[in-house]
Amino acid sequence: MKPFALSKVYQLLEPGPVVLLTTVRRGTANVVAMSWHMMVEFEPPQLACVVSNANYSFGGLRAVRECVIAVPASHLAPVVVKVGNSCGCDTDKFAAFGLTKVPAASVTPPLIEECFANLECKVTDTRFVNKCNIFILTVLKAWINPAQKNRKTLHHSGYGKFVIDAQAIKLKSRMR
Amino acid sequence: MKPFALSKVYQLLEPGPVVLLTTVRRGTANVVAMSWHMMVEFEPPQLACVVSNANYSFGGLRAVRECVIAVPASHLAPVVVKVGNSCGCDTDKFAAFGLTKVPAASVTPPLIEECFANLECKVTDTRFVNKCNIFILTVLKAWINPAQKNRKTLHHSGYGKFVIDAQAIKLKSRMR
Repeated sequence: MKPFALSKVYQLLEPGPVVLLTTVRRGTANVVAMSWHMMVEFEPPQLACVVSNANYSFGGLRAVRECVIAVPASHLAPVVVKVGNSCGCDTDKFAAFGLTKVPAASVTPPLIEECFANLECKVTDTRFVNKCNIFILTVLKAWINPAQKNRKTLHHSGYGKFVIDAQAIKLKSRMR
Repeated sequence: MKPFALSKVYQLLEPGPVVLLTTVRRGTANVVAMSWHMMVEFEPPQLACVVSNANYSFGGLRAVRECVIAVPASHLAPVVVKVGNSCGCDTDKFAAFGLTKVPAASVTPPLIEECFANLECKVTDTRFVNKCNIFILTVLKAWINPAQKNRKTLHHSGYGKFVIDAQAIKLKSRMR
């Protein structure tokens, strides 16, 4: 893993990829698929995400207040679906679906080796959790995995339907 | 415009497209580009979005508490960039960039004819606005424009760089 500039983290998440969220609950790491997230601030990078209180990851995220957001490329679509369709309450999803845990530098939940980007995050605001399951996260450290060459992300539009990034276009713009 | 089921609205926004946000301020409609949004609830569809208080649209959204989220397809990328790089304070962006206003059914801000989907929204929670410019919106009515055949969306990753949807894949999944 290679460090990635915090000032550019928004370029990973602003396009709306489905991500994998790792958490720790009672000492055990878990992972879930997540599409409901958005950037909130450029730098230090802050984001908001929705983790349902019906979800096993919710308890760990609220208690430990740390997580990793790992960005999978398109070839991991079948793994993303398996992760999203199983529960950490009865499955070690890392072992079951071939995801490799890598220790993070500043948080307890692990990075995922197979993802091309990993963001170590701290929960910095829980005031919106009771109202609508929204957690505010601050990215402490970001990593790019040079071994993962495929960086085309997946965008979920319901029931296992994904669109994959294709052509990139670059227009002259001042918009950050 | 053809009505679109509220229960499926998340399928339009969950993939993270850049959208156009219309608002009204002192009786005048304005439009801005926005990528920082996420779904919060399936049905009735609720979403969160970030509108900076440095932005001209902020005042109108906070005062009128209504907006339209219009989803542009890939051929509108040059228009999206122009909309994002200009200010409603000194420009009628609809006239300047060839966007056609269509009256909405239940809110004051207009729909946009050139977009393939339009969502009429009410601001239903402003408690997060002062803290981090997050507005919670509830979608009251959704429209699909059958005349707009291109529905490949744009995903912004900074400074006018967009990736365009390409191949769609469908995997068996229970994940809504």
